[in-house]
Amino acid sequence: MISSPTLLLDEAKCRANIERMAAKARENKMSLRPHFKTHQSSDVAQWIREAGITKCTVSSIRMAAYFQEAGWDDITIAFPVNIREWDLVSHLAGRGDINITITSPHVVETLLTLDVPKSVGYFIKIDVGTHRTGFRHVEVKEIEYVLSNLPADRFKFRGFLCHAGHSYACRSEAEVQKVHEEACQIMLNVQSKFKGFGEAIISMGDTPTASLAKGWEGIDELRAGNFVFYDLTQWQIGSCNLNDIAVCMAAPVVAKHPHRNNIIVYGGGVHLSKDRMILNDSTIFGLPVFLDGDMSWTQPDFDSQVVSVSQEHGVINASKKMMDQIQVGDLLGILPVHSCLAADLMKQYQLCAGGQALMLK
Amino acid sequence: MISSPTLLLDEAKCRANIERMAAKARENKMSLRPHFKTHQSSDVAQWIREAGITKCTVSSIRMAAYFQEAGWDDITIAFPVNIREWDLVSHLAGRGDINITITSPHVVETLLTLDVPKSVGYFIKIDVGTHRTGFRHVEVKEIEYVLSNLPADRFKFRGFLCHAGHSYACRSEAEVQKVHEEACQIMLNVQSKFKGFGEAIISMGDTPTASLAKGWEGIDELRAGNFVFYDLTQWQIGSCNLNDIAVCMAAPVVAKHPHRNNIIVYGGGVHLSKDRMILNDSTIFGLPVFLDGDMSWTQPDFDSQVVSVSQEHGVINASKKMMDQIQVGDLLGILPVHSCLAADLMKQYQLCAGGQALMLK
Repeated sequence: MISSPTLLLDEAKCRANIERMAAKARENKMSLRPHFKTHQSSDVAQWIREAGITKCTVSSIRMAAYFQEAGWDDITIAFPVNIREWDLVSHLAGRGDINITITSPHVVETLLTLDVPKSVGYFIKIDVGTHRTGFRHVEVKEIEYVLSNLPADRFKFRGFLCHAGHSYACRSEAEVQKVHEEACQIMLNVQSKFKGFGEAIISMGDTPTASLAKGWEGIDELRAGNFVFYDLTQWQIGSCNLNDIAVCMAAPVVAKHPHRNNIIVYGGGVHLSKDRMILNDSTIFGLPVFLDGDMSWTQPDFDSQVVSVSQEHGVINASKKMMDQIQVGDLLGILPVHSCLAADLMKQYQLCAGGQALMLK
Repeated sequence: MISSPTLLLDEAKCRANIERMAAKARENKMSLRPHFKTHQSSDVAQWIREAGITKCTVSSIRMAAYFQEAGWDDITIAFPVNIREWDLVSHLAGRGDINITITSPHVVETLLTLDVPKSVGYFIKIDVGTHRTGFRHVEVKEIEYVLSNLPADRFKFRGFLCHAGHSYACRSEAEVQKVHEEACQIMLNVQSKFKGFGEAIISMGDTPTASLAKGWEGIDELRAGNFVFYDLTQWQIGSCNLNDIAVCMAAPVVAKHPHRNNIIVYGGGVHLSKDRMILNDSTIFGLPVFLDGDMSWTQPDFDSQVVSVSQEHGVINASKKMMDQIQVGDLLGILPVHSCLAADLMKQYQLCAGGQALMLK
């Protein structure tokens, strides 16, 4: 019996999401190198391997170590290289293919002084409009500086990568398509401009563009991650249907307050995260759903929302139906706003069909 | 050397915060039963014990088990009792004093059917204005129903507790004082109204009122928790000075983007949480500070803010001074918006004086 907040994972939905993205990559002649920061699970990674995928992306060196240990021997760390952890990077690069990511020129001077027992691959990150990190395409001198100074025997140039994270602000397929086309244009121009520095692939892929956009000519690699689970944020963008969301938090109901139609669940910010979204002009932290026999869930009733979370409490504004049907001691499901953060917090999955999927702790 | 995001804890500041609150409780003839959900650390708990405190509050049964194991034998679980975990509650109650919290009447019927090997204490939670959970003081029949139906040999009535969490919306001592006085009034009235049901204490104490409010006549117990560390939220309310904040995230600098005065750190939503606050009309996720020899920190430069966090990235809008002084590969400190959630995510503290403080994993 589920007695505390538990992240349910529907393997069939997850495998279908993986297969859909693998098919999209195949149809567009791209390599799929999914971002494993979403699931952080060697078991989910195995389902991805069974879909024919052999390369992955991670966002930390700890994750790289975990997945290398689990048999993944071609890993891109798609986070600005952290020279304070160079010993670990170097250790991992001695055991398998590791690509680092360079997002600003200031790291080059230090990299030149570091030991590289075996060569390390590197990508140059291009900022295609998100303005988080990466080189602007107009920073030609800065990019040339990286390419000219890193010695090819120790640092192998793999290509240019981007993350069009501003696609998360889109609310229609047309908006996502526009972000995608602009990003492709920038990446193809950059690739062309620096072709004198050797063969360079283009690696792209946030989940919204990977799910929705058409036209991938010239793009070599897709690097999306969230698509394995999806979540309410992706649903709002249009990347998935509600029925594609493969994770759901099972949360015990601990109180009811009928005079304000509130249900209180054990399931708060330390389970769902404090990530939020605006739905029909209200800030929500998840959508409650009915659980069937504790393990499968219904579609959300949009009249019910998780309207606040504190450390352990979730407060639900409930529909009349939910108020009537749900009693203290029952379980409710909560579809997460952001599945990556909920997974990171929970550190384990309960499979709907029984058993567990393990995660990096 | 610190190589990845690390939560620094200044023991001297933390002990001073503890001593200040212990003194306030003593002066006001209240018992201090601090909420351990903030630190979740047996080491920090030991500093609290050394200040003469012997009782604690937790927000989950896992935490209760952890602290009971660490020698705490009088624990209130200040979260609506989760009957799905009754076996664990019952087990812990067999080994020490455990108080549960009843926040709505619907749980009583089930409680009556459950095994209680040894008696369990209980508090009735009163909603003094936060509207998260608890009985409204006007719900006289509902409160009477609980008090009349739970048999005293198995369920020992301890008293009424509240959490004036709406004090977090206050931005001055006067506003906090008003919340406090209203809460006291409600609690004293409730105590008086139900005095026929035996001796009942009043337990109060969110960190803002515990830190700022005056006038605690008739209040028996203080239950605040965040005060051990404080954070930017508490500073904004006025509960503490910036120099009282006892935790700081050390985050490696991984990129710089001078054209937009951005510094990118390894330190994101999985380290700081996605909790945010409004400062000078901007949403911030923390304030960067300079670290001295990696381990002690300066006061914040308000011209620099953490303006966004994704899973692992923190994006800092930096002052000219910070842009000039900080290089890729350096460490920056980040004062957290919400120390409880940052601690919960980090699962360990690095003491500024050296060594570590352990946490519930």
